[in-house]
Amino acid sequence: MTLHLDDLRVRRLGECRYDSPFSETLSTKQTSPHYVAEGDRVLLEDTVSMLADHGLPLGRIPSFEAAGPRRKIYFDPSQVTAGIVTCGGLCPGLNNVIRGLVQEIYVHYQVKQVLGFRNGLQGLTAAHRDDTIELTPDRVRDIHNAGGTILGSSRGGQDADEMVDTLVSRGIDIMFVIGGDGGMRAATFLSEAIRARGLDIAVIGVPKTIDNDLPFTDQSFGFQSAFARATDFISAVAVEAAAGLNGVGIVKLMGRHSGFIASYAALAANAADIVLIPEIPFALGGPDGLLAHVEQHVRTKGHVVIVLAEGAGQELLEEHGLPQQNGRGTDASGNLKLGDIGGLLQASITAHLTAVGLSPTMRYIDPSYAVRSIAANAYDSVYCLRLAHAAVHAAMAGRTEAAVARWRRRFVHVPLSLMTSRRNQVDPDGDLWMSVLETTCQPAVFGPARDRGMVRIGFC
Amino acid sequence: MTLHLDDLRVRRLGECRYDSPFSETLSTKQTSPHYVAEGDRVLLEDTVSMLADHGLPLGRIPSFEAAGPRRKIYFDPSQVTAGIVTCGGLCPGLNNVIRGLVQEIYVHYQVKQVLGFRNGLQGLTAAHRDDTIELTPDRVRDIHNAGGTILGSSRGGQDADEMVDTLVSRGIDIMFVIGGDGGMRAATFLSEAIRARGLDIAVIGVPKTIDNDLPFTDQSFGFQSAFARATDFISAVAVEAAAGLNGVGIVKLMGRHSGFIASYAALAANAADIVLIPEIPFALGGPDGLLAHVEQHVRTKGHVVIVLAEGAGQELLEEHGLPQQNGRGTDASGNLKLGDIGGLLQASITAHLTAVGLSPTMRYIDPSYAVRSIAANAYDSVYCLRLAHAAVHAAMAGRTEAAVARWRRRFVHVPLSLMTSRRNQVDPDGDLWMSVLETTCQPAVFGPARDRGMVRIGFC
Amino acid sequence: MTLHLDDLRVRRLGECRYDSPFSETLSTKQTSPHYVAEGDRVLLEDTVSMLADHGLPLGRIPSFEAAGPRRKIYFDPSQVTAGIVTCGGLCPGLNNVIRGLVQEIYVHYQVKQVLGFRNGLQGLTAAHRDDTIELTPDRVRDIHNAGGTILGSSRGGQDADEMVDTLVSRGIDIMFVIGGDGGMRAATFLSEAIRARGLDIAVIGVPKTIDNDLPFTDQSFGFQSAFARATDFISAVAVEAAAGLNGVGIVKLMGRHSGFIASYAALAANAADIVLIPEIPFALGGPDGLLAHVEQHVRTKGHVVIVLAEGAGQELLEEHGLPQQNGRGTDASGNLKLGDIGGLLQASITAHLTAVGLSPTMRYIDPSYAVRSIAANAYDSVYCLRLAHAAVHAAMAGRTEAAVARWRRRFVHVPLSLMTSRRNQVDPDGDLWMSVLETTCQPAVFGPARDRGMVRIGFC
Amino acid sequence: MTLHLDDLRVRRLGECRYDSPFSETLSTKQTSPHYVAEGDRVLLEDTVSMLADHGLPLGRIPSFEAAGPRRKIYFDPSQVTAGIVTCGGLCPGLNNVIRGLVQEIYVHYQVKQVLGFRNGLQGLTAAHRDDTIELTPDRVRDIHNAGGTILGSSRGGQDADEMVDTLVSRGIDIMFVIGGDGGMRAATFLSEAIRARGLDIAVIGVPKTIDNDLPFTDQSFGFQSAFARATDFISAVAVEAAAGLNGVGIVKLMGRHSGFIASYAALAANAADIVLIPEIPFALGGPDGLLAHVEQHVRTKGHVVIVLAEGAGQELLEEHGLPQQNGRGTDASGNLKLGDIGGLLQASITAHLTAVGLSPTMRYIDPSYAVRSIAANAYDSVYCLRLAHAAVHAAMAGRTEAAVARWRRRFVHVPLSLMTSRRNQVDPDGDLWMSVLETTCQPAVFGPARDRGMVRIGFC
Repeated sequence: MTLHLDDLRVRRLGECRYDSPFSETLSTKQTSPHYVAEGDRVLLEDTVSMLADHGLPLGRIPSFEAAGPRRKIYFDPSQVTAGIVTCGGLCPGLNNVIRGLVQEIYVHYQVKQVLGFRNGLQGLTAAHRDDTIELTPDRVRDIHNAGGTILGSSRGGQDADEMVDTLVSRGIDIMFVIGGDGGMRAATFLSEAIRARGLDIAVIGVPKTIDNDLPFTDQSFGFQSAFARATDFISAVAVEAAAGLNGVGIVKLMGRHSGFIASYAALAANAADIVLIPEIPFALGGPDGLLAHVEQHVRTKGHVVIVLAEGAGQELLEEHGLPQQNGRGTDASGNLKLGDIGGLLQASITAHLTAVGLSPTMRYIDPSYAVRSIAANAYDSVYCLRLAHAAVHAAMAGRTEAAVARWRRRFVHVPLSLMTSRRNQVDPDGDLWMSVLETTCQPAVFGPARDRGMVRIGFC
Repeated sequence: MTLHLDDLRVRRLGECRYDSPFSETLSTKQTSPHYVAEGDRVLLEDTVSMLADHGLPLGRIPSFEAAGPRRKIYFDPSQVTAGIVTCGGLCPGLNNVIRGLVQEIYVHYQVKQVLGFRNGLQGLTAAHRDDTIELTPDRVRDIHNAGGTILGSSRGGQDADEMVDTLVSRGIDIMFVIGGDGGMRAATFLSEAIRARGLDIAVIGVPKTIDNDLPFTDQSFGFQSAFARATDFISAVAVEAAAGLNGVGIVKLMGRHSGFIASYAALAANAADIVLIPEIPFALGGPDGLLAHVEQHVRTKGHVVIVLAEGAGQELLEEHGLPQQNGRGTDASGNLKLGDIGGLLQASITAHLTAVGLSPTMRYIDPSYAVRSIAANAYDSVYCLRLAHAAVHAAMAGRTEAAVARWRRRFVHVPLSLMTSRRNQVDPDGDLWMSVLETTCQPAVFGPARDRGMVRIGFC
Repeated sequence: MTLHLDDLRVRRLGECRYDSPFSETLSTKQTSPHYVAEGDRVLLEDTVSMLADHGLPLGRIPSFEAAGPRRKIYFDPSQVTAGIVTCGGLCPGLNNVIRGLVQEIYVHYQVKQVLGFRNGLQGLTAAHRDDTIELTPDRVRDIHNAGGTILGSSRGGQDADEMVDTLVSRGIDIMFVIGGDGGMRAATFLSEAIRARGLDIAVIGVPKTIDNDLPFTDQSFGFQSAFARATDFISAVAVEAAAGLNGVGIVKLMGRHSGFIASYAALAANAADIVLIPEIPFALGGPDGLLAHVEQHVRTKGHVVIVLAEGAGQELLEEHGLPQQNGRGTDASGNLKLGDIGGLLQASITAHLTAVGLSPTMRYIDPSYAVRSIAANAYDSVYCLRLAHAAVHAAMAGRTEAAVARWRRRFVHVPLSLMTSRRNQVDPDGDLWMSVLETTCQPAVFGPARDRGMVRIGFC
Repeated sequence: MTLHLDDLRVRRLGECRYDSPFSETLSTKQTSPHYVAEGDRVLLEDTVSMLADHGLPLGRIPSFEAAGPRRKIYFDPSQVTAGIVTCGGLCPGLNNVIRGLVQEIYVHYQVKQVLGFRNGLQGLTAAHRDDTIELTPDRVRDIHNAGGTILGSSRGGQDADEMVDTLVSRGIDIMFVIGGDGGMRAATFLSEAIRARGLDIAVIGVPKTIDNDLPFTDQSFGFQSAFARATDFISAVAVEAAAGLNGVGIVKLMGRHSGFIASYAALAANAADIVLIPEIPFALGGPDGLLAHVEQHVRTKGHVVIVLAEGAGQELLEEHGLPQQNGRGTDASGNLKLGDIGGLLQASITAHLTAVGLSPTMRYIDPSYAVRSIAANAYDSVYCLRLAHAAVHAAMAGRTEAAVARWRRRFVHVPLSLMTSRRNQVDPDGDLWMSVLETTCQPAVFGPARDRGMVRIGFC
């Protein structure tokens, strides 16, 4: 899907008429603070080959609006009430984002009220709209030391009109939606309903995905914390596999559609022999299949360590008549339910190795909750804080139906609807996956091969 | 300093005539591996405003050569001997880079000998050139679990011709120099001497700087590990300051010319009241000076936490007649010796607070070695591995007098001489420093003010 | 079971005729090293009430032989070959013990050969006896940085005579068996077979149990590392439970027969509402049953966190007709196979809460491998080192059929057979469990109550 | 100093007339809680040799009163106000103790008010007595996640009568003093003044010493956290020393009079070549002196790592005419000020190695605040909690002028005055120091030797 410059423009509620209070909060008597130049933008693409494809003049090359503080803002801070909600599964950094939003909007914009809606979008329903938490700098001071979200979360959408009623009823001018695929979709519906009613409410999304599968984002917040924690489990399973007779260690990591956590954690742990991700199908049997390679590792090295993204090999479940079809309903967030590839691998490998006289010691770990519930590490703490600052600046400057994101290390504004228009996936021809292959020495594919072309210079 | 496209071109030893052995190592029977397109490049700049300034056609816009494996390579792997040396101060990830180089060059390019020269450039002198370590995949398998460098290091340059003699005497075809400012300078001299002699030896630099002050690099390897560790010390000093009567906590962090570690660690720890970096001069006295602000914090909050980059406030030492002049000689690496700003701050603050009746409990930590000697964290482990892969690909493809770097998340080749042509510093008008100001609520400057303009969209 | 002094005496191979080489290794020209007084002993019991029960003269009160170096030793170090084997499940510190044994016996006793038998007792069978690892100080220098065991392990006993043949065939004089219940039993059989043949081989056990369920040991090595790691998972599940609607978090921790890890981890994490251990049966239903309490927590606090030892509630499985009977076979180590109490709890709680209109968000973690495979923490590192030193001293002084243990912070010798004569369990009337009750505020029992008496002064 | 049974008896305010409310809080309908038997005691000594020395009947052997809940208590919980103060330097676990005290006294004894006095004993002066913090379970819920003390601390004693006035004025019935040498001394004076006035106020000490130098305590709370953290710095300095030319790494650790942290951290890190502690004097020069050994390490191994307790080698400072005499004043807590042995060692070693042509790369770390300000680890968290429970039980049962302590893993009551009557030190003839010698292979003494006798079976 090709994007044009106009696809990347972000909607504004109207003209910015108020002076930013930064002039007072961030200056000494003689200095004034600094602001983003209104017109500046960041290119969507930055390789000569990609730009050449467009053949466009510079002014028409697809680009994002730069995030940051503006000299003139849309809302009168003294009149603003802001709301925050966190949706979907946990991810390191949620509390850091909440804390950053509250501190920026209170301390620097001197807005006097921020409401936290509880338990995800359920908190925006009529039944729960009055059960909010008053979010003050004092209340949020230390919340970043814990994982999770002090607001609670839930999966599942809610009626857009009922949610708009809530915003009106609680006097919300700016609504921050921190969420994943489902949350960004809900924020889109919510803001469309707001626009339909002609209301003056800004909706800013802060994209959250532990799988790193949302587009237009270098790496989603919490991703580094998550894969760092995941490496501990790879190490654990590697220790177990090495200590047992014909040890087979398998770690199933998060990654429904994208193998980023599996790939990064495998590179960091440097103990994986085989990495399996959703982007690259694999075969179990045959001379080039997974089982043959597993057997070879056990024979030569005594053990094998497999890192498995939860969404890998879904096509195999169907083949094996396993409940992937039925399982492939959707959960409350609209996510596909995945069949259990971990179970299939354990069973297949055990059967195969036993058959060839290498009865294995099988060690399987699925650490899911233990990875996603941790507090953000130092890097993600900084990232979340700066992302929260960008979100507040965007909202105060009247941007709406927009998400804040980091694009090749610059903070930018992205139209909300684009955040759910595609998935970020590991490029099988990109240099991240290339490094995985170089490190594990596994073959490019298990089973019948595909044609490969040029390696693409990725920036994942 | 404006760069032109030609400044960014990397030198090549000659034509690439050999097939990459990747065809065998990374393919199954039916697949072939993938390679970087020879001509592709990554833009130096990526904002519309910066590109517009050039007014150049796309083909002339400054850009870097993309790193990665090439289908045709310059060296015959079966004939190659490679050398590795680590120079300058320690930095998390040195062992990871060594390990990545050795594994890539052995396993994938099937080169059969890699020599590690010991104790920095001293290892390339006539006296020490034969005291090398044979680096094999087995030898380096677990070295990434420890900080430091198994090769040892030292400061200071050596005679370029003597070093070239060493390369010739030991039969080195490819020399990897992992080092900082001094190391990159030495690598430049070394490769110029090689060129002068018309030798067929590739020199590839892997830039190392814990201060993140080398240019053309998103963040240098080890930086994230280092600032993460530094946050522990900010937390420690904050706990001490909060527990003592009129507590003053000061952490002096690394950063001779650049305040990146101080800024990032302060953002991550979220406990600093004041951050002082080399890029922004400050005054001690006067109503807007540092001492007045320190006093105000102690009065209102009971304590204050200051994060101090070692290079901050050097101008104050001169003012106070402290041995900054003499101290400003250079060490063996050619680094300026810094005066002791930590001592000056302790003395000044103690004197000031005592004078106003707030006799302080002073807590000062200078964790230097404890920060730089740790093992790389998960993120840096991945980064170092991929950087090492890029370095090996560059060398095998006959690039020389080049460094490998990560530029806005893409791996690229940079001419070696450029790596020492400028410094990467915190932009006082950029969004990183803006976030520091927003988080600490400290004024834009302590003391007489400067004019501020637009915030620049940074990508630090 | 009452123990008499004679039960606690340790067997010796014979008279100690050689001078300890410590005189040379640990002294300067003018000093001599120090040794344990041959006759000194450590009391088994140390409260006035327990001693009074005996009514014995001091010389007959049950006590252990003190561990430590002796001036005269049994073996001629220059003639000794030692063997090491690790048995059973992993536990933090195994490599530390191996390393401590090797260094002590090489460096201080100057024994010249230590053989590591591989993969547990399987390594002592005829088929595998020659596949040993030569253990030198250099080989073991850094092994303590990793979890697991470099020797590998396995479950299951082997024929005692075949194992003795191995010792004879490989010329072993001293055999160190690091293992749990099964390993100590095997070491007992092995040493009995040695005695039956009249061989001059010392067998010293180093008791290993991550569950802390072996007797005559303050806390087994690795226990502190393990419960510290387990607290991370309680925190994880607590974060998840707090974030979800009607959140129920359950962590199943190790502890087949003893709830030490569950109790300690719950105290350390300070997030558990309910702790369930094998020592204290519980009922699900009824007004005082577990389900009622779970419901109450969810109603009042919004969520509940349960810490569950794997051996808890086995009696319930039978009640529910679950495969506890069949499951109650034994594994290769002779351990009972436990039924899945975790599954039962999840199902029962979900059913109950759904029935009362509190449809739960269930979060279940079973971190097993991820807890037991970590490296030893600082405390356990010291403990393992000192325990290894004690084991070497015991062996060189000709003790055999003995285990080394720490008894109320003193290192002692315990007859091997006693190590499997009873289990260490959490005393339901002791002060450890009392502290758990005080911290969780859970009732003394779930369901019909028992009579309680005096609290016993424990020292667990 | 020999102790008699009567020295170990703890004073009581009077007869216990109230029923413990535990009967309600810790029981179900049919069960009653369990209590400590009033008369039971724990032996002071537990080796046969030590007991034999006494030649006393069992009833007269020195022993401690067991800690724990009593069936009958002295105070009417509904009428009690408790106070807490933290004194002296920071130590991991202070907040855990505060939290444990507050939760136990509130939740289980249902006392309704606990006051926290601020900034150490200064908080008990007339000027500050009303500036207290109301300590509730809610206020202390998460404080254990941070190091330090939420109450603040200070050094220095205060007038005992003024402090008693404060207790009377604020209606305090039970005063918990958490502190070290100075704090225990102050608590003793305070309780003597209370006794002199005939007041009905219980004073319970919770001994705190990061150096582990208080007597009658297995290991003081926070000690394990502290030495674990200290090992990180030994590792750091070892990495630095190994990487530099003729690298000399020195870590100065806490330990004014006792080398426990240095010894334990050195054993745990397993990287120290030389450990220097206050208990064992050493000489610099001469063929057996420290400098000769340092030189030997640098010559043979290339580098040396020294772990130094801050109180080591004070006698050398005098010899070298360094300001040890003047420096040997006392600080506000009455602690001797130590001269700077770290500086002396750096200078001496640099001079010596330079003189013999081995000009060193010197790496010196003094991590002090960074060690003592951390949060308690899992073990210490449990320990602090149980110690706090014991302290509350003691106070409610009317014990006064007493400290709670852990003696060979049992919680006991110790008369306050005894806590400052002697120091706990590393026994140069005990098995802890023996293990240090065995691990480092350093000689028993540097310099002219002493006679050594039997090793004592320690339990440090």
